[in-house]
Amino acid sequence: MTVIAFDVNETLLDLRALDPLFADTFDDPGSRGQWFAQMLQVAFVGGLTGQYVDFTTAQHAALSMLADRLGKPLPPERATAIVEAMSALPPHAEVPAALARLREAGFTMVALTNSVQSVAEAQLRYAGLGELFNAAISADSVRRLKPAPEPYHAVAQRFGVEPSEVRLVAAHAWDVSGALAAGCRAALVRRPGVVAIPLGAQPDIVGPTLTEVADRIIAAR
Amino acid sequence: MTVIAFDVNETLLDLRALDPLFADTFDDPGSRGQWFAQMLQVAFVGGLTGQYVDFTTAQHAALSMLADRLGKPLPPERATAIVEAMSALPPHAEVPAALARLREAGFTMVALTNSVQSVAEAQLRYAGLGELFNAAISADSVRRLKPAPEPYHAVAQRFGVEPSEVRLVAAHAWDVSGALAAGCRAALVRRPGVVAIPLGAQPDIVGPTLTEVADRIIAAR
Repeated sequence: MTVIAFDVNETLLDLRALDPLFADTFDDPGSRGQWFAQMLQVAFVGGLTGQYVDFTTAQHAALSMLADRLGKPLPPERATAIVEAMSALPPHAEVPAALARLREAGFTMVALTNSVQSVAEAQLRYAGLGELFNAAISADSVRRLKPAPEPYHAVAQRFGVEPSEVRLVAAHAWDVSGALAAGCRAALVRRPGVVAIPLGAQPDIVGPTLTEVADRIIAAR
Repeated sequence: MTVIAFDVNETLLDLRALDPLFADTFDDPGSRGQWFAQMLQVAFVGGLTGQYVDFTTAQHAALSMLADRLGKPLPPERATAIVEAMSALPPHAEVPAALARLREAGFTMVALTNSVQSVAEAQLRYAGLGELFNAAISADSVRRLKPAPEPYHAVAQRFGVEPSEVRLVAAHAWDVSGALAAGCRAALVRRPGVVAIPLGAQPDIVGPTLTEVADRIIAAR
């Protein structure tokens, strides 16, 4: 039995849908990427210092930091609108069919995300993907965000399998490194700009889209 | 007694000296900043996954990732030249005089850096700052990089003081957050683009350069 744990943001859902909101707010075409990178750093610092920060809180903090850095006003209702838009993202074009093929092939399908549970469920519902998953597991449930080992191990525990029977699929190198360090397998969706971390264990499956990754997972079964 | 622990890269030393090397290698004006951010993320992932990555290794890995992402060749000797240039950075203009004032005011002065020991010592020597410090402590000596608590606690241990008697001075918000979470005090040097993380404890001293920060540390004594 293999349980496939899919990262959600960027891997399944397309954050480019946020670009008009960022353009209106910060007038800087790189601001959405800067925000997501800053948000991750805030979340990682929480993990390294033993002061857990949930993903929604990290998103608000990073918006405030970005506004401060760019010298732009950020009305609270605008910050709320951006964070709420995270729950209403479209899937990347190839995602619904690729997920459906994996599901039909008999894999146990889990969404494993750093988003809090309510956001994770809203995201899958909005994107029309909810029916494809056996479970949605939020890292918030173990109060340790990926790439720490606990969220990956939570998937193994939920389905009563060893970590080696869990395969993460993600478009983030840090998420793949975390899964491999936790004893899982991993596949990297190498969307534009995505590069593996060339240290430690490496993913045995790499493809440019979820379609190619799904093909290889099915072929490797 | 207060022990002042100074972060080195960006806080004391000016990484802009690397810009010509990055321009020659990657032909992208933002590449030095992208590299440093990627390098930090690689280091942080090492800390979160329990797979320690020393700072020199993180620098090489991030250069390789950047070359891959930008589609540029990176001859090994060029990567080595960039990493070696980290040992030959000039201090920010105000730094020597501000450090000398703090030293004359009687503080115990420590360089506390994620760089490995040999690089830390080469950096201070090249910048002409070595004589101003009572010690240079590398986070590598405890195999945990800042912002994890161990490096800050290593400073307290070395001088036989409580963490609350250590004050970190840094131009990185994540470093300040780490020191505060470890029970130390902290001052943020708010160089252009530097913004505090608006979560958890906040630094009681913030200034635009080391001169203003030094003035406030002396006034607060």
